[in-house]
Amino acid sequence: MIIVMAPGSTEADLENVKKKIKEEGLDYHLSTGSSRTIVGVIGDKKAVSRLEMHCCLSGVEKTVRITEKYKLVSREFKGENSVIDVDGVKIGGGAPVVMAGPCAVESMEQLLEAAKAVSEGGAQFLRGGAFKPRTSPYDFQGMAEDGLKMLKEAADINGLKVVTEVLDQRTVDTVAEFADVLQIGARNMQNFQLLKEVGRAGKPVMLKRGLCATIKEWLNAAEYIMSAGCDDVIFCERGIRTYETYTRNTLDLSAVVAIKELSHLPIIVDPSHATGRRSMVRPMSMAAIAAGADGVIIEVHPHPEIALCDGDQSLRPEDFKFVMEDINRMSEILRGGR
Amino acid sequence: MIIVMAPGSTEADLENVKKKIKEEGLDYHLSTGSSRTIVGVIGDKKAVSRLEMHCCLSGVEKTVRITEKYKLVSREFKGENSVIDVDGVKIGGGAPVVMAGPCAVESMEQLLEAAKAVSEGGAQFLRGGAFKPRTSPYDFQGMAEDGLKMLKEAADINGLKVVTEVLDQRTVDTVAEFADVLQIGARNMQNFQLLKEVGRAGKPVMLKRGLCATIKEWLNAAEYIMSAGCDDVIFCERGIRTYETYTRNTLDLSAVVAIKELSHLPIIVDPSHATGRRSMVRPMSMAAIAAGADGVIIEVHPHPEIALCDGDQSLRPEDFKFVMEDINRMSEILRGGR
Amino acid sequence: MIIVMAPGSTEADLENVKKKIKEEGLDYHLSTGSSRTIVGVIGDKKAVSRLEMHCCLSGVEKTVRITEKYKLVSREFKGENSVIDVDGVKIGGGAPVVMAGPCAVESMEQLLEAAKAVSEGGAQFLRGGAFKPRTSPYDFQGMAEDGLKMLKEAADINGLKVVTEVLDQRTVDTVAEFADVLQIGARNMQNFQLLKEVGRAGKPVMLKRGLCATIKEWLNAAEYIMSAGCDDVIFCERGIRTYETYTRNTLDLSAVVAIKELSHLPIIVDPSHATGRRSMVRPMSMAAIAAGADGVIIEVHPHPEIALCDGDQSLRPEDFKFVMEDINRMSEILRGGR
Amino acid sequence: MIIVMAPGSTEADLENVKKKIKEEGLDYHLSTGSSRTIVGVIGDKKAVSRLEMHCCLSGVEKTVRITEKYKLVSREFKGENSVIDVDGVKIGGGAPVVMAGPCAVESMEQLLEAAKAVSEGGAQFLRGGAFKPRTSPYDFQGMAEDGLKMLKEAADINGLKVVTEVLDQRTVDTVAEFADVLQIGARNMQNFQLLKEVGRAGKPVMLKRGLCATIKEWLNAAEYIMSAGCDDVIFCERGIRTYETYTRNTLDLSAVVAIKELSHLPIIVDPSHATGRRSMVRPMSMAAIAAGADGVIIEVHPHPEIALCDGDQSLRPEDFKFVMEDINRMSEILRGGR
Repeated sequence: MIIVMAPGSTEADLENVKKKIKEEGLDYHLSTGSSRTIVGVIGDKKAVSRLEMHCCLSGVEKTVRITEKYKLVSREFKGENSVIDVDGVKIGGGAPVVMAGPCAVESMEQLLEAAKAVSEGGAQFLRGGAFKPRTSPYDFQGMAEDGLKMLKEAADINGLKVVTEVLDQRTVDTVAEFADVLQIGARNMQNFQLLKEVGRAGKPVMLKRGLCATIKEWLNAAEYIMSAGCDDVIFCERGIRTYETYTRNTLDLSAVVAIKELSHLPIIVDPSHATGRRSMVRPMSMAAIAAGADGVIIEVHPHPEIALCDGDQSLRPEDFKFVMEDINRMSEILRGGR
Repeated sequence: MIIVMAPGSTEADLENVKKKIKEEGLDYHLSTGSSRTIVGVIGDKKAVSRLEMHCCLSGVEKTVRITEKYKLVSREFKGENSVIDVDGVKIGGGAPVVMAGPCAVESMEQLLEAAKAVSEGGAQFLRGGAFKPRTSPYDFQGMAEDGLKMLKEAADINGLKVVTEVLDQRTVDTVAEFADVLQIGARNMQNFQLLKEVGRAGKPVMLKRGLCATIKEWLNAAEYIMSAGCDDVIFCERGIRTYETYTRNTLDLSAVVAIKELSHLPIIVDPSHATGRRSMVRPMSMAAIAAGADGVIIEVHPHPEIALCDGDQSLRPEDFKFVMEDINRMSEILRGGR
Repeated sequence: MIIVMAPGSTEADLENVKKKIKEEGLDYHLSTGSSRTIVGVIGDKKAVSRLEMHCCLSGVEKTVRITEKYKLVSREFKGENSVIDVDGVKIGGGAPVVMAGPCAVESMEQLLEAAKAVSEGGAQFLRGGAFKPRTSPYDFQGMAEDGLKMLKEAADINGLKVVTEVLDQRTVDTVAEFADVLQIGARNMQNFQLLKEVGRAGKPVMLKRGLCATIKEWLNAAEYIMSAGCDDVIFCERGIRTYETYTRNTLDLSAVVAIKELSHLPIIVDPSHATGRRSMVRPMSMAAIAAGADGVIIEVHPHPEIALCDGDQSLRPEDFKFVMEDINRMSEILRGGR
Repeated sequence: MIIVMAPGSTEADLENVKKKIKEEGLDYHLSTGSSRTIVGVIGDKKAVSRLEMHCCLSGVEKTVRITEKYKLVSREFKGENSVIDVDGVKIGGGAPVVMAGPCAVESMEQLLEAAKAVSEGGAQFLRGGAFKPRTSPYDFQGMAEDGLKMLKEAADINGLKVVTEVLDQRTVDTVAEFADVLQIGARNMQNFQLLKEVGRAGKPVMLKRGLCATIKEWLNAAEYIMSAGCDDVIFCERGIRTYETYTRNTLDLSAVVAIKELSHLPIIVDPSHATGRRSMVRPMSMAAIAAGADGVIIEVHPHPEIALCDGDQSLRPEDFKFVMEDINRMSEILRGGR
């Protein structure tokens, strides 16, 4: 059960609620978000029932019975879709959001060229890795803080927001200084310490699905972020690992529908990492929007043939424009028809 | 290498080609389709090269070097898309084809109700299992030949074509008598004897992807059918088996793009079996069409709550209508824009 | 529920049982094996309970309540381990059985050399494919009936039994004429028509696990064979398909324990196909025996470097001897200690 | 290429080597372990070849050409098996090492009971989680530092070493204070920051395989730890995620052989987490040792029925004794025979 404290409730109200919980032999988990305080009640079901009956306590807005482990992220908790406002850009608000840019920040020159292309194409976000999680310690690990500054500058010049990955608990604040949305990568989806830390950073978080994470594990990972105080979580489907080797991963578009059924949070799709093939980015972007995704994140590189990573799946600026046109056409139709 | 005999070539031409092949110490595989004769040359690469040089023989239209094991199904072999004409209904010709109906034929009454709904919705094909492949020998195994007759009758009354599964080499001819398209189910994708048999039946064949088949294995399975003499093969993506349990299988829409890249044959998508969830049929149908699929196959049952199988994923007639409207809208937009 | 008819029961007894079942509104499935008749009762649980109470009918040996779909193969149905006697060679009787030989029958010469090595090493069965299921129609498809005859002759000369795959319903009798154990390959594990056919052939059947078959599906496939009248089914674990590419498949040795828990039937392990690597055959054979497997099936080729298939995973005769020594040592220890 | 500096080499030698590398336009990665300094040379292959020819420089012990991304962990780099000495207990030295104890530290009482049983059974390590990675933020997260102290105390009393998981970069030093071996859990296998941090902690590290990690990714993860200065890495196979649901994960024992082929480092096996079933722990432990594993890690709980986590897979002390006897018998035989 979750007890949602009313906006104007006092410290004394909260203390009283805690006391009642303890009296029933139950434990609680406190989530103090920017906008509200939520008390997750944990323990024996019978005692929870007793508590519920007694519980028209002062300062309590509502109590919600939730059957799943994940609570704050669930549709049961919140019926309407969450719209995440990133300084004016709305994610989940109807029109699809597009995040685009190179896999890794390589130089200011590369980034400016990419940002310009991305902006002209109509994207709202510039993506790019300053800290890169790489399978081998000897691979290029990213430009770190220098990369962050370049991202911010290139984005500002072109009127874009920045989304970039945070890898390390100790650099969360640094990344949060330059990024508008903090990205948690697939390999860190169950790095629970990092999830808690980004949840406290005061910025929206985009949570990529783990390489072999189930929908339920993914929802629970988001619960870690929300229970740490962040209301603005965006899911990102980026393909799962299967036996098939023709594509890099297998894009699971049914996950878009599943997330919409089970959660109120928005979801975007990454066709570039999911397929690993440039030729699949356009059709899979369109399919994602048709399936109900709130946006896509696409790798665009001014010169894919010399990219430090993921060249095979990066679009050239001129191809990106066509993809954007198709996405927009698809989106207008879909919204027009309902 | 493949040697394609010219339309007007004679028996003597063919004999001469065979003789030359043997002279080089090579073997051959003969594919005598309704429209053409193809000689697949098998053996040592050097000898194949020698043969090629000598080979401006009488009656030969062209020779094609093909790097993959699958040849007749490949884009290398035929550049333009194949359009399969099922007695006037075109598959792969632009407008999406819709096949719909119950999982299993249960009774004439059920079938008539389903066929009417399906036809009114705008589908072109009635689907339904007369022979059912079931995990347990004690589950309902289908109505067999009686079921076939009902299918044909219900389809005729409502102006529909019939697509139904063939499970057994010995019933291929019986099924071919009543069906317009013969379906090979996922479990039989590598039942090579059955593939050869349906390839000889003189009807188009819809080949479902195996539960854990790679794209390449699937193409090779289609090659079995084509090399047995059937030019009209339709792929059907129906989800692959992964670790995820929220959906019955994981629908792999990138396979649609892969098939389009590697083969000239059409592909349709089965969102019902792939997801196992009624609520996902509409969004996944739209995503399939957006990804470039040539059609969808959907389970529709007049009364899903009493269906003998797959009730959870079957649409009610009224829901099917909405799905059809969305598919048509999607299709018009996609075609309009190009 | 299953009703097991007593050995000396009459036709009249059976008719009476059927009548009672029908009176309760239930259906039945008749399994007439060589040794017994079993009536599987199918239908509403309440009616089954009523039937059970009434059912001390003449000619009935016992009734068994079985919770799973698979019944005859289950431990619930038969508590003690089944020992399968193949003309004197016991499978499941304690000492591990070894089946060995080449992937495919290529020539009498090859086979005689292989059979001699296999026999000298101490194996009891000669394996080898006369009919080969191949991904591509252009790959070597086996020597067919000629191969069967060679197998039988090479085995007879060396005092071995023959195990070989049957691919086609129409050749079941032919294969049964030459083979002591009929093998169903992984790709045909759910080719239900073939399962029924081999179940009627009067020979023991070795059922390989499908590439992505669950334990439960595998048990149900065995149930198809047993319910068609064959009591002597041997499971064969041969690796499942996963994302890992270092090995050809992933050998699932916990399946050995699972089968032992859920079924009374023996299970052997195929380390050659599972790993696809010669170097892994010895350690995985030992691990299989340690896990409780009743034997192993190993690819041995006199000259792996020129094998028509699976050369990379075939042992040379000299290596096979060492593996046999290790298997025997392992087995003695395991049995000695209990 | 790797340049291994000789034990007595000087700073000046190293500077000279670095200078030569830069002169060829190459980059380097420095690994300063407790025992040696290694210079990994990164860059264009031709330049590496030139460097190699020039490179009989002062202070250089040897240069090694390594084809894979992972270098320090590879068999190419070190031919003989590494034996890791944990204060007298040798891992990889022939006799199997056994680590045992509860999933989570719950109380001093529980731990003392478990440690006594584990020690009497003959294990060398006490395992137990003080920091628990849990799917849900509302599940028991472990006793943290208190748990570490209890572990150390219970181990000391019973003459055991401690192995326990570290989840957070910031607690590496705290865990290293109490633990003899630091464990990296499956979910953190590609938490690269944590890998680097534990590599610097001066303690042996046990690296569990990720839920869907390939062998190659696992080796690269170990390379992160070794390149950070730790020579003592132990692999731990704990099952991979597949479609099969009968077992919690699928234990991949061929990974034991793969690691032995590709690396000089020891590997142990976790049958408890891999199978999730108590009944499978004994046979899978024996199979692991038979496959060549250097030890096993087993969950033992004095009262599994009240365990806070993983009760279903925990052995009771009396069962653990039998497993130990079987492991020891297996081990003696295997070693005796060679």
